[in-house]
Amino acid sequence: MQTVVQLRQLYEDYLIANRFEQRPAGLYEPVNYIMELGGKRLRPVLTLMSYELFRPDVERALPAAHAVELFHNFSLVHDDIMDQAPLRRGHPTVHEHFNVSSAILSGDVMLIYVYEFLLRMSDMGCLPQLLEVFNRVAVEVCEGQQYDMDFEVRQDVKIPEYMEMIARKTAALISGSLELGALAAEAPEADVQHLAAFGRHIGLAFQLQDDILDTFGDPEKFGKKIGGDIIQNKKTYLILKALEIADPHTRAELLEHMTAETEENAGKVEAVTAILQHLGIPALAEAEKRRHQQLAFDHFNAVQTPEEKKIQLRQLTEKLIGREK
Amino acid sequence: MQTVVQLRQLYEDYLIANRFEQRPAGLYEPVNYIMELGGKRLRPVLTLMSYELFRPDVERALPAAHAVELFHNFSLVHDDIMDQAPLRRGHPTVHEHFNVSSAILSGDVMLIYVYEFLLRMSDMGCLPQLLEVFNRVAVEVCEGQQYDMDFEVRQDVKIPEYMEMIARKTAALISGSLELGALAAEAPEADVQHLAAFGRHIGLAFQLQDDILDTFGDPEKFGKKIGGDIIQNKKTYLILKALEIADPHTRAELLEHMTAETEENAGKVEAVTAILQHLGIPALAEAEKRRHQQLAFDHFNAVQTPEEKKIQLRQLTEKLIGREK
Repeated sequence: MQTVVQLRQLYEDYLIANRFEQRPAGLYEPVNYIMELGGKRLRPVLTLMSYELFRPDVERALPAAHAVELFHNFSLVHDDIMDQAPLRRGHPTVHEHFNVSSAILSGDVMLIYVYEFLLRMSDMGCLPQLLEVFNRVAVEVCEGQQYDMDFEVRQDVKIPEYMEMIARKTAALISGSLELGALAAEAPEADVQHLAAFGRHIGLAFQLQDDILDTFGDPEKFGKKIGGDIIQNKKTYLILKALEIADPHTRAELLEHMTAETEENAGKVEAVTAILQHLGIPALAEAEKRRHQQLAFDHFNAVQTPEEKKIQLRQLTEKLIGREK
Repeated sequence: MQTVVQLRQLYEDYLIANRFEQRPAGLYEPVNYIMELGGKRLRPVLTLMSYELFRPDVERALPAAHAVELFHNFSLVHDDIMDQAPLRRGHPTVHEHFNVSSAILSGDVMLIYVYEFLLRMSDMGCLPQLLEVFNRVAVEVCEGQQYDMDFEVRQDVKIPEYMEMIARKTAALISGSLELGALAAEAPEADVQHLAAFGRHIGLAFQLQDDILDTFGDPEKFGKKIGGDIIQNKKTYLILKALEIADPHTRAELLEHMTAETEENAGKVEAVTAILQHLGIPALAEAEKRRHQQLAFDHFNAVQTPEEKKIQLRQLTEKLIGREK
């Protein structure tokens, strides 16, 4: 079994070997730009690890791993246009560094190359199945983004809808990364399903943790500015839970903060954070996160492969959702 | 053999049977909107006709035909954002009728469904080949769009580059529609290649004709306003040929018209049209169009299938490039 560091390096080498050197430069430069901004390479590493649970020749899964990372970056490029985001991983977003047309078109060509790399798995005899799973996941990611945009202008979003949204927008691709790796390795169907479910709950726990840390995290460790979600009036799990359990007076207060446009941000973050604390939201959110952690590892434990093969993947995902604390 | 009208109806029925009824509505409504704006359904009909040259059970090619039409409409949705086009087929474009984010995301989901429909061809045993051809075509269409945008800000575009651009942006998908139909029918390799080349030259002749008609067409028949390309300073075959053969004085005059921003449009169209006439451009463009016509039908004639099976496709493509005149 290779370590996370080894698998990440294996993927990085593949990425560089498959750099887009085609012309026109205006189309492919933005692709190399976003792909080489770095990041943890979580999804391709998950694909490789899932494959390695069942087969040792992990290089054969590299095209599928690359397809997953290309898709993830394609979705970032297009989402950043929609969200008018100026920065990605500390650098200007593609539409800022190049322009909106480049970001649209380069994203499109990335999505086509996703399938080109999946097609390189065709000698493994599982192509239709890989494509079927990938398409389902890709559609879910688009649906998740649409729900996320819909929720921005809705004031009546409920927690089950929110969980459905993050299941699509965040968890589907993490689940899909694991599922594709297992499928490529021709793992038994039950194990494929357990890994998919494991990924889904890991993705949900990961997003819940992100919601918690955005408001209650340690600024030094979190990497982003604390309170960003509150400033942007994002309807996170924390806010939706607060709206669900608050008394009418507190709910009105919270809604007022979330609709006041000219409010001073520092004061707003403090006020909303205090309401969330007062309602006991951090503990409730932590409990929901732990519930998904538990479900995740129940599925992981059910995968029929020796424990020594699972160590790397177990450690990586535990670290991802902060279980090691 | 079915007539064009019959095949178009067959496709329209399939389109309606495969309407996107999924949720969220914000994602799928724009897809139904653009798919149901009409149009000639040229590309799916070409796929069906190409299939029918070799096999009678044309319904089996419907998913591939739909993939081609979905891809064409996906490219229109995204191109219209980049070109800031207000109208498409006489109706507001998707980004105008909905908004830019919807147009980006709905286009993305259309591109994913392209592959979903191609995947429905997997029982025909030619899936990897279909995907390979489709991916090559799809990449070419993106490259063509990028070259087209690049050319807008370049003043040194030459005719071979222009032909390469329209080969990708326009001809590749017409060629691909025919190639996919023949591949799905498991036609002999030589015939597949002849049909692909046929489509490529038909596409080039079609675009050259469009360039000619935009300036010299009959306003009643053309459907669009005459002179649109001149007003937008588009570097069409007509303009590039004129810049190539004009004396320095005339070239300077033409370039001045093409860079003057505040010029009165009516006078500009007349002045540029007069220069093109004076240089004999219409005859030169017609000759180039006829050259591609000839090459197209040479390839078509080489396809090894009885002439009575070819009649419908021959008539449709002759009509398309105005050869019947």
